[in-house]
Amino acid sequence: MEHLLAQRTARMGANAIREILKVTGQPGMRSLAGGIPAPEAFPMEAIARLSAQVIERWGPRAYQYDLTEGFGPLREQLVPFLAAKGIGADAAGVLITTGSQGALSQLAQILVSPGDAIAVESPTYLGAISAFNPYEPRYLTIETDQGGVIPESLAEVLDRESVKFVYLTPTFQNPTGRTLSLSRRRLIADIITRHGVLLVEDDPYNDLRYRGEAVPPIKSLAPDHVVYLGTVSKVFAPGLRVGFVVAPTPVARWLVTAKQGIDLHTSTPNQALAALYLESGELQRHLPEIIALYKPRYQAMLNALDRSFPRDIRWSQPEGGMFVWAEGPEGLDTVSMYERAVAEKVAYVPGRFFYTDPDAGAATMRLNFTMLDEATITAAVETLGEVLRRELGDAG
Amino acid sequence: MEHLLAQRTARMGANAIREILKVTGQPGMRSLAGGIPAPEAFPMEAIARLSAQVIERWGPRAYQYDLTEGFGPLREQLVPFLAAKGIGADAAGVLITTGSQGALSQLAQILVSPGDAIAVESPTYLGAISAFNPYEPRYLTIETDQGGVIPESLAEVLDRESVKFVYLTPTFQNPTGRTLSLSRRRLIADIITRHGVLLVEDDPYNDLRYRGEAVPPIKSLAPDHVVYLGTVSKVFAPGLRVGFVVAPTPVARWLVTAKQGIDLHTSTPNQALAALYLESGELQRHLPEIIALYKPRYQAMLNALDRSFPRDIRWSQPEGGMFVWAEGPEGLDTVSMYERAVAEKVAYVPGRFFYTDPDAGAATMRLNFTMLDEATITAAVETLGEVLRRELGDAG
Repeated sequence: MEHLLAQRTARMGANAIREILKVTGQPGMRSLAGGIPAPEAFPMEAIARLSAQVIERWGPRAYQYDLTEGFGPLREQLVPFLAAKGIGADAAGVLITTGSQGALSQLAQILVSPGDAIAVESPTYLGAISAFNPYEPRYLTIETDQGGVIPESLAEVLDRESVKFVYLTPTFQNPTGRTLSLSRRRLIADIITRHGVLLVEDDPYNDLRYRGEAVPPIKSLAPDHVVYLGTVSKVFAPGLRVGFVVAPTPVARWLVTAKQGIDLHTSTPNQALAALYLESGELQRHLPEIIALYKPRYQAMLNALDRSFPRDIRWSQPEGGMFVWAEGPEGLDTVSMYERAVAEKVAYVPGRFFYTDPDAGAATMRLNFTMLDEATITAAVETLGEVLRRELGDAG
Repeated sequence: MEHLLAQRTARMGANAIREILKVTGQPGMRSLAGGIPAPEAFPMEAIARLSAQVIERWGPRAYQYDLTEGFGPLREQLVPFLAAKGIGADAAGVLITTGSQGALSQLAQILVSPGDAIAVESPTYLGAISAFNPYEPRYLTIETDQGGVIPESLAEVLDRESVKFVYLTPTFQNPTGRTLSLSRRRLIADIITRHGVLLVEDDPYNDLRYRGEAVPPIKSLAPDHVVYLGTVSKVFAPGLRVGFVVAPTPVARWLVTAKQGIDLHTSTPNQALAALYLESGELQRHLPEIIALYKPRYQAMLNALDRSFPRDIRWSQPEGGMFVWAEGPEGLDTVSMYERAVAEKVAYVPGRFFYTDPDAGAATMRLNFTMLDEATITAAVETLGEVLRRELGDAG
């Protein structure tokens, strides 16, 4: 059958990360490899109550085919939700997608011809790469430091080459946890406007802030140049597969055409449920509970890193989200180290999977703090510190 | 922004059919243009009860991220469902998709490079064309008669050109309502096996049979050469966006990789709900109710056509599904006639939208019988008969 495959399919290689993560289900494994919300963060009581209300309120309409653009009542509820973040859109300007992944896939389908360039921060979100790869882009990498994307590096890339779009996660980035400051956002808004370039701003973690002050999305600073992606996955439940997009009008129109071919529309009952979650004020009520669950875990991880990690490992200082990013000295290889960590019942994601350059990121790793309780996080980081110390001894 | 579009996007033209169907919402319109199940066919009481059970039984797991392949309990429930149709698969061999549309889109993504050929029956399902078009195929058309696809025409096409796959809806086809006989299925199974060709068998209407005997899917006759697509849309509720695929192993593996990039996975709670719908026997209990709703409508349409349509219009004699297909003599143009029918408060879908050749099908139309009650169908067909009579008078 292999001869039947499209040329592009070669780019969609078997998922190496999936193989590596298979061990995380082993008994006793303390996994910092997760990339998902804690199930105890889901508002199950509200889900049960609001699911019944969906049926009472909309009846069969909530289970029928619906518009590709999205379920009207959800699009309306998202208007004030977005306005609170500084994003102006009317209901007709909000499109619903099958998770943010659906939006990333649609964007690549309508914008990317083989060989076209996409500028991504380095490291970048793995799931975006799997959404883009089938459309055979080239990747241009934008350099980052502890403050996230370096605006001068973005300007250099855009001066050098024309790109179909820039892809960034400016807030609590996956994998680094870093957040761009307001001044960097202003510089980036200015750069993309000056270059007439489209920016895809992926913002799934925005509401998961444990300290510091909210920073406005770049979309609010350059509305005509930004495609903004949000999701209910991190503040409600990811299994619903409900995301949303606010895009400049011509892009929005093509996104709808693409989605019609891809999946017709996103699940109607799940959109109806999300609409009630927003309308009832349940999101505002429940969000502090999610924060109250994650914040001590976040703090436990940062404390444990301070206490247990070797001095020549550096790590990010996120103010929210789900991840800390750690980087060791040259010579450290977190892929080969993985099996030794797993032998000690600790798992993480080797950072190289988040780079489009296969030679980059050997000494990096992503650590998740949402899936384990504080004591387990503390113990896991301690063990990982010991494993690292041995690695670095070996490497030296 | 137009300069940013990918080359492929030109193929994804604005949906003309969508424009034409906008009028179907006008007050008093009797629309035979629908392509969707009747909302009164949805088992709302069971949906309410089983939705509560999903939460009791699986809790947060039913709202968490899940495997790209699908929710385990649903895949298990589909094994006996498929076996009853003669399709042998274990749970690992059943993949869940975001409706059949999701499966069509994934198949095109992994198999079609620009210029590759897909063989489709003529006319064919419009939604499949919108799923395939972004991947820039060429279409080869297989001729049909009142019995559906003509096997000799398929053999001729495959002798002449190599194709990535053949796409057919052998049972109660959309748009024609036609069903391939067992003897034609055997011939087709033989042809694709002999040519070593992949057949995509789209089977959404299989369970909606109002008379005659079930015919086994081609998948059961040539299991190694057929990708079988099913959905719960027509026997449960389409808004759930839950479909399923049984494919030869190498194809299945790539379908999973593609889906990971497209939407990660299909809605977990909707899959869980479908699993309980099957497990509880609710589908077997409810299906006769759907048939009892549709069968009189189907009969009303066939009777009204007999009574009211001009003699030089021919139409299909479906044994199930949702559609009848009508064809007039050369000279009839169902697109230009559309506004005159709408003025008389009757809508239908002009048949040319179901042809990949833009010059074909001018004299054809698709008539749906699931959305209106018997009296309205009878009156709508009567009016349409009068409109047609005037058209044919004009044309002669």
